[in-house]
Amino acid sequence: MPYAIDETHDPNLKSWVESANDPQSDFPIQNLPLCSVLGSVEDEPEAVSAHIGVRIGDMILVLDALVQHGLLEETEDDWWVFVEDIAESGQTGNLRKRLQHLLREGNNELRDHPQLDEMLFPVSEVELSTPILASGDYTDFYASINHATNVGSMFRPDNPLLPNYKHIPIGYHGRASSIVPSGTRIKRPVGQQAPDEGARTPNFGPCKLLDYEMEMGAIIGRGNELGSRIPIEEAEDHILGMCILNDWSARDLQKWEYQPLGPFLAKNFASTVSPYIVTMEALAPFRCAGAVRPEGDPQPLPYMTSEDNSKAGGVDITLEVWLASAQMREQGMEPIKLSTGNFRDMYWTMAQMVAHHSVNGCNMQPGDLLGSGTVSGTTRESRGSLLELTWDGDPFANPPKLVPGTQRTPIKLPTGEERKFIADGDEIIMKAYCEREGYRRIGFGECRGIIEPADLG
Amino acid sequence: MPYAIDETHDPNLKSWVESANDPQSDFPIQNLPLCSVLGSVEDEPEAVSAHIGVRIGDMILVLDALVQHGLLEETEDDWWVFVEDIAESGQTGNLRKRLQHLLREGNNELRDHPQLDEMLFPVSEVELSTPILASGDYTDFYASINHATNVGSMFRPDNPLLPNYKHIPIGYHGRASSIVPSGTRIKRPVGQQAPDEGARTPNFGPCKLLDYEMEMGAIIGRGNELGSRIPIEEAEDHILGMCILNDWSARDLQKWEYQPLGPFLAKNFASTVSPYIVTMEALAPFRCAGAVRPEGDPQPLPYMTSEDNSKAGGVDITLEVWLASAQMREQGMEPIKLSTGNFRDMYWTMAQMVAHHSVNGCNMQPGDLLGSGTVSGTTRESRGSLLELTWDGDPFANPPKLVPGTQRTPIKLPTGEERKFIADGDEIIMKAYCEREGYRRIGFGECRGIIEPADLG
Repeated sequence: MPYAIDETHDPNLKSWVESANDPQSDFPIQNLPLCSVLGSVEDEPEAVSAHIGVRIGDMILVLDALVQHGLLEETEDDWWVFVEDIAESGQTGNLRKRLQHLLREGNNELRDHPQLDEMLFPVSEVELSTPILASGDYTDFYASINHATNVGSMFRPDNPLLPNYKHIPIGYHGRASSIVPSGTRIKRPVGQQAPDEGARTPNFGPCKLLDYEMEMGAIIGRGNELGSRIPIEEAEDHILGMCILNDWSARDLQKWEYQPLGPFLAKNFASTVSPYIVTMEALAPFRCAGAVRPEGDPQPLPYMTSEDNSKAGGVDITLEVWLASAQMREQGMEPIKLSTGNFRDMYWTMAQMVAHHSVNGCNMQPGDLLGSGTVSGTTRESRGSLLELTWDGDPFANPPKLVPGTQRTPIKLPTGEERKFIADGDEIIMKAYCEREGYRRIGFGECRGIIEPADLG
Repeated sequence: MPYAIDETHDPNLKSWVESANDPQSDFPIQNLPLCSVLGSVEDEPEAVSAHIGVRIGDMILVLDALVQHGLLEETEDDWWVFVEDIAESGQTGNLRKRLQHLLREGNNELRDHPQLDEMLFPVSEVELSTPILASGDYTDFYASINHATNVGSMFRPDNPLLPNYKHIPIGYHGRASSIVPSGTRIKRPVGQQAPDEGARTPNFGPCKLLDYEMEMGAIIGRGNELGSRIPIEEAEDHILGMCILNDWSARDLQKWEYQPLGPFLAKNFASTVSPYIVTMEALAPFRCAGAVRPEGDPQPLPYMTSEDNSKAGGVDITLEVWLASAQMREQGMEPIKLSTGNFRDMYWTMAQMVAHHSVNGCNMQPGDLLGSGTVSGTTRESRGSLLELTWDGDPFANPPKLVPGTQRTPIKLPTGEERKFIADGDEIIMKAYCEREGYRRIGFGECRGIIEPADLG
């Protein structure tokens, strides 16, 4: 059941952390996303351990420091204690209310605390890790029908959208070890590519068709026992919150390797996540109808159908992808925007993904990451990968207009450079935020990564 | 580089643990596989923590207890300290030598120790967990060309073996959370199955075509940094040892869901592993040529080619699958053997799988599990799944004889029951062992699981 809008979403609430009151801030007092802080400037260098933090304006509040100074109820120093408090309540958690109380304008309890500087740090002075502390599994879905149709048209021109697509939130397991935090430099992967026409031996070398995929990630806050299932009505109570996910993809490796068991080396060299988990409570004002299915499309099976889900299973999140080439950065140019999409366009909702993932008894665990799949809309501007953006096919023509993948219209950069896929030195920047009249903007921050040249080892 | 045969493999070595000297024991003093012990009868019930253990005959030796009593060099109480000792040396580790010394006939240092009963426990009195302590990733390969051809003939009659198969050790990521130890009862999964002929809506209910897959698992002992690769020559130094893996598979779910991103719910409801990691050192006498490729097959690309690998990249491990139905157990009947295969029949070696997995910079971590894929030979008796065993197709006919998956010859049980796939109450028992003239038998123990009826929740 989606969380309700309540007094914690009041747009008039302000914080004594002034930077949180800027209307353009991603992190007002109504947001309070969770993050994982690696040590801090005060700590001994060898004592790099992760602490749960909360972002407010330009600052990070460290929760175990609050506990230590008696400002937050004593509890085990354990990330998941807070998480469970949020996830099990099914309502705005005590943590959210308590932090809002401590941070709001007019309450000087924390602001004037003599040890404030042991609890609140400028974000520029801390190092943030991936927002997922526990080592969990990572599942990547494929929940945008626009993306599935676009990519299907290129990989299987005769068979773009498979018969199972409208019945199953298609997903596959990804690699958890290579999930890295925003800002991590990514080496261009090396691998096999299909043999040249007429050749017997596959090509081998640096990926030539390196791509990003703009996704949202859902982080599981509460699991289920192996052999049990999560009913659709309860599915959202198991989700702690969301982050941005860049599912880097080596298209040439993918095309050659993906049959019959799915993508492998094309994806597992790195996946980048933004550093904040925006809680489902913070997203309450931005819920919208999930997956409006065109006339004639089948209804989901009962285990994926609920009234809540059809009314408010979606989230209205604007997603942007930006690019800055090395040359652009050297010349002091700003990144250019490649696309703008919206998460409400997904064919399957997060609750449906959770219900489906566990219907066979598969056990979710706190810290698991579920990727949504590339978020692509119906317009060219809303396509969430370069594979789709620079492609000249129009899958919304009926019958689909099928154009081989190599016929590509490059994107022109202000330096005069052109891009069909990602070049070495390019930085990809993803942003996501929610806006609605009468509410404060809630942002996810950024998910960044620069591609480094391949290492030929 | 495969480990060398040395004095630790001497067949004349005996232990003062008498049960280890039985020639039919899986666990002579030449084996000493690692396991993970959950507490012990002596412990407080609430203090269930995992301890590294070593199996010898019918007994389990607990390593941190040895350390505590000064019989093993003091070190951090950390499983991976032992692992790294083994993996980094590239030779028989100090641990193996020290344990053999403590356990061998004639040395009474441990045998006569006043606290022996705090260090050595009958296996019947301890609970063993999965042998993998650290939470790692799980990758499943598909390295038997016989299995790939058999299954391909059923799933894609027009296209059984895809063009990439002989160039790539095909693999995909599996679910780590649902890896369970031998003996765990497995609930029959529920899920979507393809619509009936002419129907629009998929079927939904308990899996009708439940299967096992007989695999071997390799456990990573030493990882690599993200962005680096593991050269084929060093690949085996990263493998700690091997265990038995039952990759339970719901064939009807698989057939409907697996395109285009691979198996998902068909596999992730459970995977069972045997409780022991048989170290690569213990397996040294049983190494054999890896992957003898038929005339005309392409050679692997250079990153998967090494002299060591072609000479001794394989391991001669006999694999058996047994079945006991509930009725058979009630009537006191012994399990019947379904198949006998051999791990040397794999098209790709473990070293090739590790080199391929990391060639794109993907980081392995200690505790990761790599499944080999179903081990099937060229004869009917050596097929490692029921899907293949009860199938009437003959893929080794040329051109392949393609028979739809439903034409099956059931296996007859001594009770008069018949099986095409697994029925509720069936117990599947997998065994694996190495035998060679002049050496002691080295066994892997058993990997067991009973199927419980589906929970329609």
